[in-house]
Amino acid sequence: MVTRADNLTIDAQRLWDDLMETARIGGTPKGGIRRLTLGEEDRQVRDWFRAQCEALGCTVTVDEVGNMFALRPGRDAALAPIAMGSHLDTQPTGGKFDGVLGVLAGLECLRTLHRAGYETHAPLMLVNWTNEEGSRFSPAMLGSGVHAGVFDRAYADARTDVEGARFSDAIEAIGYRGPLKVGTTPIGAMFELHIEQGPILEAEGDMIGVVTGVQGMRWYDVVVEGRESHAGSTPMRMRADALPAAAALILAIQERARACEGAVATVGTITVHPASRNVIPGRATLSVDLRHPDAERLAALEAQVRAALAEIAAAHGVSATMEMIWDSPPVPFHPDCVGAVRAAGEALGLRMRDIVSGAGHDAAYIARVAPTAMIFVPCVGGLSHNEAEETSFDECGAGAQVLLQAVLDYDRRLAERAAG
Amino acid sequence: MVTRADNLTIDAQRLWDDLMETARIGGTPKGGIRRLTLGEEDRQVRDWFRAQCEALGCTVTVDEVGNMFALRPGRDAALAPIAMGSHLDTQPTGGKFDGVLGVLAGLECLRTLHRAGYETHAPLMLVNWTNEEGSRFSPAMLGSGVHAGVFDRAYADARTDVEGARFSDAIEAIGYRGPLKVGTTPIGAMFELHIEQGPILEAEGDMIGVVTGVQGMRWYDVVVEGRESHAGSTPMRMRADALPAAAALILAIQERARACEGAVATVGTITVHPASRNVIPGRATLSVDLRHPDAERLAALEAQVRAALAEIAAAHGVSATMEMIWDSPPVPFHPDCVGAVRAAGEALGLRMRDIVSGAGHDAAYIARVAPTAMIFVPCVGGLSHNEAEETSFDECGAGAQVLLQAVLDYDRRLAERAAG
Repeated sequence: MVTRADNLTIDAQRLWDDLMETARIGGTPKGGIRRLTLGEEDRQVRDWFRAQCEALGCTVTVDEVGNMFALRPGRDAALAPIAMGSHLDTQPTGGKFDGVLGVLAGLECLRTLHRAGYETHAPLMLVNWTNEEGSRFSPAMLGSGVHAGVFDRAYADARTDVEGARFSDAIEAIGYRGPLKVGTTPIGAMFELHIEQGPILEAEGDMIGVVTGVQGMRWYDVVVEGRESHAGSTPMRMRADALPAAAALILAIQERARACEGAVATVGTITVHPASRNVIPGRATLSVDLRHPDAERLAALEAQVRAALAEIAAAHGVSATMEMIWDSPPVPFHPDCVGAVRAAGEALGLRMRDIVSGAGHDAAYIARVAPTAMIFVPCVGGLSHNEAEETSFDECGAGAQVLLQAVLDYDRRLAERAAG
Repeated sequence: MVTRADNLTIDAQRLWDDLMETARIGGTPKGGIRRLTLGEEDRQVRDWFRAQCEALGCTVTVDEVGNMFALRPGRDAALAPIAMGSHLDTQPTGGKFDGVLGVLAGLECLRTLHRAGYETHAPLMLVNWTNEEGSRFSPAMLGSGVHAGVFDRAYADARTDVEGARFSDAIEAIGYRGPLKVGTTPIGAMFELHIEQGPILEAEGDMIGVVTGVQGMRWYDVVVEGRESHAGSTPMRMRADALPAAAALILAIQERARACEGAVATVGTITVHPASRNVIPGRATLSVDLRHPDAERLAALEAQVRAALAEIAAAHGVSATMEMIWDSPPVPFHPDCVGAVRAAGEALGLRMRDIVSGAGHDAAYIARVAPTAMIFVPCVGGLSHNEAEETSFDECGAGAQVLLQAVLDYDRRLAERAAG
């Protein structure tokens, strides 16, 4: 039996049923999921995942940090597999779609191919990356990061959770320390379907986001030092109040980011010392998060913020420092993979737009070692990392269909290249 | 032996020696004092105070909340005494002068009169008010507040410290529950010498502050509610970030206070929720402290801040509330007492200025029940509630001399009035 790729249609109901079935593993009363990395619920969902893949004739292997690879052979066993995947772990009060959708949609793609008896040119692979959320073991995207050589295995093993439990012990405890050496599983390309976790697609009425890359992100600690003094007996003109200076910086950051197309900037935390109602703050400490898809414009934004801080400190008679504590350069996805996603959306007649991911994803690390792209579908109100996270039946189905078509399109080009 | 009042000179060295001697009771390695209300060190300094006063022939009585009254008879026993005094308790890491100076300078005045055999018209009284600091048992100025009828005895007794110890048990434990019913000890007038706890006198080169009253103070809780969302995937134009709105309020408060002569305004605390680097703050909570010597101008300043908050909330697309949690009206001191202080400073040829107290003091409560005034002396850098608090030998001496002259001037006018 030979089926043409463009006749293959995923079963949206079957995908939805899988989403709802696995949502019971760690399901919360408020309709979310609590499935922390390498916990008992993670073991259960991993077992379920393995069984489903094996039922489709796939071979499931596991590497030393628990990344799970389900392989479906293609015609040319020498080719590196085209991967789909995301993660099955969740935030402590996570939703039903973040990560899970990308894995289960990949599973639905494999099922669709299996039922149709469709054979790809390259092997296909479905991946469940370990500890994407980073909420039990920091940092996030640990499994894909180890695979891509960003971190080594020893680093992963030494991570501890808030109760002091080590990653290495937790992985042994649930039986998911695999024999595969990290980073040795070949990946020819990767496609990750994910909910947007932002409000753009919904606001614009688009069904599909063609993700062209991941923003560059830089994190900073800013410390403003003034002079602590009595709120009642220190005249306004004799103060060196750290907080108004910090306030001026917060507004300047917002203004600079608004003036820079494509930029986002956030002060997510602020603390003052001594934090007493009737003491003028002697110190204010802020986090600054600057993001832009373009490295040069991100650097320019940083320079503007630094200049604003220096001006503000001088005007307020305080001193200030701004230290960069994390720098994640922009990740452009591969034009071949992005093109395959766009072609799939066009062929299906879906409303879509190019979009840059504002958040980190496993795909951002895998892009370092293989051609990669992502597909976004909307989520209600842009809400994520929240039990109320929601993406509709139709949106999940459309995303899975685009995923399948993009993978088959990419595979077809590989076949053409091999033939040509 | 008859001595003219204007020939009486306090002994600045003796006062200084007392300051240094009592500073050893609860003395800290950094040169400060930790002498918490009704603790063992408080008992020691109270015993010392009683002994010193009794050695001068005074009668020391104690009321139900531990306020100590040392009475030195005058010619007319029917007159309510002219009081001097302040407090001997300190902050947990307090300095050597806050409060202590007012009590020990009063003691030095009594000594000077005693040595000279000078008899006043009215009786004199030296007071040690219990728990001015409010750092072990909140609120501050508890003893003077009970005396003035602001609080009742039961309220004081029910106060607890952070370890759960009750005021009533603590006062029994150190043996300073006196038999005098609170508020029944007559006070004809009160003069309180205190360090400024602000930078004005030092900056202006003045030795004496003639305190004309205590500012009005109002405390508020402001809550700004925006919408929590992802720092990476939420475009600037789609945010309802609570923090920039709070920042705009902080700057507006500062601007309004600067434009209002005599006002001070402080945001001493700010917290954001959820306080994560990569989450846009959904909520910001701020304390606001507004002060002005004039009740109407204080109310006008509040109205300006409320108007600014409403404008800012609308402009930032957030909601905001501002709740007043404390309102302490301005306290004008009595013109006769203020006049006596000013006359004393003038007679002594000291550089001085009128000043309004920015902080609360025992005198602010006593002013409700008796003519009252305060005398300020400078403190280095305006620093107080700090082990590094410092006021010079000369400044302490000058303050004590002004205290003595003011009391004697006030007493002379009473005598003239009685005679005329």
